[in-house]
Amino acid sequence: MKVRVAILGASGYTGLELLRLLLRHPQVEITALTTRRDESPHIAEVHPQLTGQLDLRLEKLSTAETAERADAVFACLPHAASAAVIAELMETDLKIVDLSADYRINDRATYENWYGVSHPDAGRLGKVPYGLPELYREAIQGAKLIANPGCYPTSAILALAPLLQAGMISAEGLVIDSKSGVSGAGRNPKPAFHFPECNESFSAYSVGTHRHMPEIDQVLSDSAGESLEVLFTPHLVPMDRGILSTCYAMPTSQTDSDTIHQVLADYYREEPFVEVVESPPATKQVTGTNRCHLSARVVRGRVIVVSVIDNLIKGASGAAVQNFNLMHGLEETTALI
Amino acid sequence: MKVRVAILGASGYTGLELLRLLLRHPQVEITALTTRRDESPHIAEVHPQLTGQLDLRLEKLSTAETAERADAVFACLPHAASAAVIAELMETDLKIVDLSADYRINDRATYENWYGVSHPDAGRLGKVPYGLPELYREAIQGAKLIANPGCYPTSAILALAPLLQAGMISAEGLVIDSKSGVSGAGRNPKPAFHFPECNESFSAYSVGTHRHMPEIDQVLSDSAGESLEVLFTPHLVPMDRGILSTCYAMPTSQTDSDTIHQVLADYYREEPFVEVVESPPATKQVTGTNRCHLSARVVRGRVIVVSVIDNLIKGASGAAVQNFNLMHGLEETTALI
Amino acid sequence: MKVRVAILGASGYTGLELLRLLLRHPQVEITALTTRRDESPHIAEVHPQLTGQLDLRLEKLSTAETAERADAVFACLPHAASAAVIAELMETDLKIVDLSADYRINDRATYENWYGVSHPDAGRLGKVPYGLPELYREAIQGAKLIANPGCYPTSAILALAPLLQAGMISAEGLVIDSKSGVSGAGRNPKPAFHFPECNESFSAYSVGTHRHMPEIDQVLSDSAGESLEVLFTPHLVPMDRGILSTCYAMPTSQTDSDTIHQVLADYYREEPFVEVVESPPATKQVTGTNRCHLSARVVRGRVIVVSVIDNLIKGASGAAVQNFNLMHGLEETTALI
Amino acid sequence: MKVRVAILGASGYTGLELLRLLLRHPQVEITALTTRRDESPHIAEVHPQLTGQLDLRLEKLSTAETAERADAVFACLPHAASAAVIAELMETDLKIVDLSADYRINDRATYENWYGVSHPDAGRLGKVPYGLPELYREAIQGAKLIANPGCYPTSAILALAPLLQAGMISAEGLVIDSKSGVSGAGRNPKPAFHFPECNESFSAYSVGTHRHMPEIDQVLSDSAGESLEVLFTPHLVPMDRGILSTCYAMPTSQTDSDTIHQVLADYYREEPFVEVVESPPATKQVTGTNRCHLSARVVRGRVIVVSVIDNLIKGASGAAVQNFNLMHGLEETTALI
Repeated sequence: MKVRVAILGASGYTGLELLRLLLRHPQVEITALTTRRDESPHIAEVHPQLTGQLDLRLEKLSTAETAERADAVFACLPHAASAAVIAELMETDLKIVDLSADYRINDRATYENWYGVSHPDAGRLGKVPYGLPELYREAIQGAKLIANPGCYPTSAILALAPLLQAGMISAEGLVIDSKSGVSGAGRNPKPAFHFPECNESFSAYSVGTHRHMPEIDQVLSDSAGESLEVLFTPHLVPMDRGILSTCYAMPTSQTDSDTIHQVLADYYREEPFVEVVESPPATKQVTGTNRCHLSARVVRGRVIVVSVIDNLIKGASGAAVQNFNLMHGLEETTALI
Repeated sequence: MKVRVAILGASGYTGLELLRLLLRHPQVEITALTTRRDESPHIAEVHPQLTGQLDLRLEKLSTAETAERADAVFACLPHAASAAVIAELMETDLKIVDLSADYRINDRATYENWYGVSHPDAGRLGKVPYGLPELYREAIQGAKLIANPGCYPTSAILALAPLLQAGMISAEGLVIDSKSGVSGAGRNPKPAFHFPECNESFSAYSVGTHRHMPEIDQVLSDSAGESLEVLFTPHLVPMDRGILSTCYAMPTSQTDSDTIHQVLADYYREEPFVEVVESPPATKQVTGTNRCHLSARVVRGRVIVVSVIDNLIKGASGAAVQNFNLMHGLEETTALI
Repeated sequence: MKVRVAILGASGYTGLELLRLLLRHPQVEITALTTRRDESPHIAEVHPQLTGQLDLRLEKLSTAETAERADAVFACLPHAASAAVIAELMETDLKIVDLSADYRINDRATYENWYGVSHPDAGRLGKVPYGLPELYREAIQGAKLIANPGCYPTSAILALAPLLQAGMISAEGLVIDSKSGVSGAGRNPKPAFHFPECNESFSAYSVGTHRHMPEIDQVLSDSAGESLEVLFTPHLVPMDRGILSTCYAMPTSQTDSDTIHQVLADYYREEPFVEVVESPPATKQVTGTNRCHLSARVVRGRVIVVSVIDNLIKGASGAAVQNFNLMHGLEETTALI
Repeated sequence: MKVRVAILGASGYTGLELLRLLLRHPQVEITALTTRRDESPHIAEVHPQLTGQLDLRLEKLSTAETAERADAVFACLPHAASAAVIAELMETDLKIVDLSADYRINDRATYENWYGVSHPDAGRLGKVPYGLPELYREAIQGAKLIANPGCYPTSAILALAPLLQAGMISAEGLVIDSKSGVSGAGRNPKPAFHFPECNESFSAYSVGTHRHMPEIDQVLSDSAGESLEVLFTPHLVPMDRGILSTCYAMPTSQTDSDTIHQVLADYYREEPFVEVVESPPATKQVTGTNRCHLSARVVRGRVIVVSVIDNLIKGASGAAVQNFNLMHGLEETTALI
């Protein structure tokens, strides 16, 4: 029997990517797509790529209607809006993957400070597994609600967590210089993402103020076993998709490239979606896949780890399906290979 | 003594390109920049590219104030808005280059039908020279007001007008298949020009309905000496700037590539900005310049002329400066080479 | 039981795309990858995208070795080289999809004239089905060898064949103005495809001389029931993948957009991969899929059909898998949705 | 009287950019273009962008011929080849700007170690001014030979040198994470720069091994007054031109964004080509110009300076013209604004 799936907020890029993946999932039936607007466009009007592939309209559904139509929900809603809806959905039998940031931050004050809003479901903070199976697979398997990670955090955490856990690098002075394709900014037209503005240009943005910084802090602190603060700088690359993070760290004792490579390779040996490779990777190696490629070097006494993911897949919708598979006891890689 | 220049509507891409060209013009002093909004941002806030190069703010100026501050005006306003302002400016001593479409169409009904608005200065239609020096240099030299051509029309007319004038090709059955970079769509963010929508994509648009079609009809009819209608199809190329038009025509008698090449080369022999080249040209050959490159072939009995221009320069701001130079008796190529 | 598949010449873009599709094919086991070079690199060295997904090396295999290792072959070899190998493979039990141009042209003189080589297996010309299921499904189903269509021809033929078959458009004066992403040029670095040369540029090439022109002639002549010659002009778009063809035709009698739309929609009603859509399509609508989107308009008495495909999938590897499925009696859409 | 200029090795991107700039230079006459090949193509065949603008052929010239034809030389030759030629040219009256790396490194062993060749003119090392006018204007003014800086070093040094000179940041632990457009890789087609390989992809390369690292070390050591070693990681951005460097440093005492901003602004107050701006800059702000935009932030106790330049202009040919102007006692900004 198939799992009936609803997607809340299906009109953006993560929604489209989820639909593409789920249409290939043999144990899934997509039964509802919601919108917060009053119009009910056919999904092929919203995503012409799906013409002839899915005959559903976007609908404005109540919690009860959603619960009746589906067994599981992917929530692709803006922050704060997401937790408001999920607080209600938690009263039903639905299993939920939340792709917003609402349940990623354990500390209410940190969330409210960085996101500038009051949390609509603050009581649940700290109790929702962070949906990075490579770190928290067991907690995900039994969960009813998962906080799907941010795209930048996924790329940075996969690069650094094993080295922090192994005590190979210092928790002090971590620098994460990240670069993302423009789809990470979402589908709403804004001046900064108007084609002739960002095409043929490369820029830094949100220097010191990006909301993914406390998320990275939190998860890497957990890996390090001590509270740490990273320096995270995001940049905009004139391409559709892909994130590359160049991570700089001080080793705790003298080391070399091979040793660091080996620690990472050992950590990810059984992982279906993480590869530790020799050459510095390009984002194109993982475009369209749920994979992360990592490469490490020791240069002038410091450790450099480069990681690449597809921001819309391993950084969003692919991870969401991976979590969905785990939550439902399905083969973890279904629809992802 | 320098010509004092005002730019009306300086915040778009044609405004920026005009400023870049005029900042290099030894006989020009830029004295005013206008906006129709209430804010008065510094030009470096609007165009960070100009930081440190021009110390002016955008201002909301009356006609009288503009006439006091400047000797000449470049109007980069939307259609209809432009003619409304220019009707007033014509009462002053200012010389005016209008970069909108308002004075390009000679026939009022055609204008109002294609642009869907009532013309605010219809009495002047048909009396304003069309600012393509390669066809109408004499009329431009004595003019007070010039209608600066559209970008697509410039590329198509330069390719076909000499062959029509020479009677080498039929006025019947002309097909103009044009491709433009995204800056041609202006600087206002819209879904179609959101980076992840149009990047890595190529599309046709406004098939059979683009407003440059009657403009091409009109000028090529003049060249042919008979009324003609072209089939014009624009397409969007994922790049900043450049237009390539592939033009298909029936020869009036049997001909070959060399003959057609020669007619074009003879026509443009003295022109400073048009080159007839052997190989099919790429838009990049003319990016950032006021030049047009043309190449012709006869294939299976039909004539194919390919033309390339930079849509923002020869297709807009460069042509405007070329017209300005002619109107003011300056060396035609000043600031353009 | 799975079909054991060998890919001859797996190091290019069509090879990579084939591998991606076949790795998802439940009835396929990839058992051999060949190269004509002496080195035997691991496939992950050739295509880092496949790291961790396929553990095979490229090998130099004889015909006998290939026949022993596989039940079916996809040949991604250069023209002439392909037919030389296939002539031998036809002596074995292998089923073969040839992605080269070698068996597409029925007439030996035409082939040798356009490709500039002697055909190594000329006796078979005219007896090999052209692998466009939308036109020749029955012939494909029983075949041992299929000539997989060229990318440009696929986009042009799907747009025009139904209208020619229905007698709606004239066989005279067809103009096909096509635009392709750069992957269509293959994986060998050449000056024209060096990033800073073709990025931010759009160009026409091979005007009147492209080898896909006689291929289009041949298939559309078959559809028209009379010998015809098209005017075909290819252009290079600064993007990875996608072809858009803008096709111009004279209707045989007065008609309108709805009528043309309907003829196309009726023709493709049962087709799993062709959609007739309302708005002029963008290549991005079909990127990464085996689909073709078509849109038609009648403008100023002439018919314009715009078609889009992914040149590497519906234009090459996807069509090859579709043909493979038909040849082996498998569900036609397997691995393609 | 004009300075007669020869360009050695005019067929690459720096050669093209030099020609564009020098064609606008009122005190320059371009009199010779050299090549090391036997063919003598017209410059318009090599750079179609220059059609109709410069009527010269590339020639194989001896030192004596060059000295006869020109008063000044720009050498755009590969490393080692450059110094071999310049060693001879130094015997003539020519003034020389060397755009290669040959005279940038003062220490012979360092040069030979990083460049892997024996230096053909090692005796001159350490005596040639480094052509960054913002740091070494006086030395440049009297010079006969200038070592034009590397593109990455220019972007990094302009960001960090004033802070090191002022003692605001530590010489320890500098991280320079740089991103460059593809034109920085030159005009020779290679697999890594084949359009479908690097388009829509972002990658790190030469991690810990890039030859610009010792060049940055050397100049920043000079600014710091002590020997230092930076961590420099270059990345490839899918765009034509532009470099952005994100530079991380430890302040020597507690500081804030405004203080750092002020030190930089004060340092560059009189500089015609460096602007210290508020918002993190985008490379597009300086594309096509000789300018550098800088922006600074203090985040979590560390200093981040972001700098942008056009790699072909301020990072190569524009700087070369700026140096040329200084060497010849011309207005420094001629042809550059």
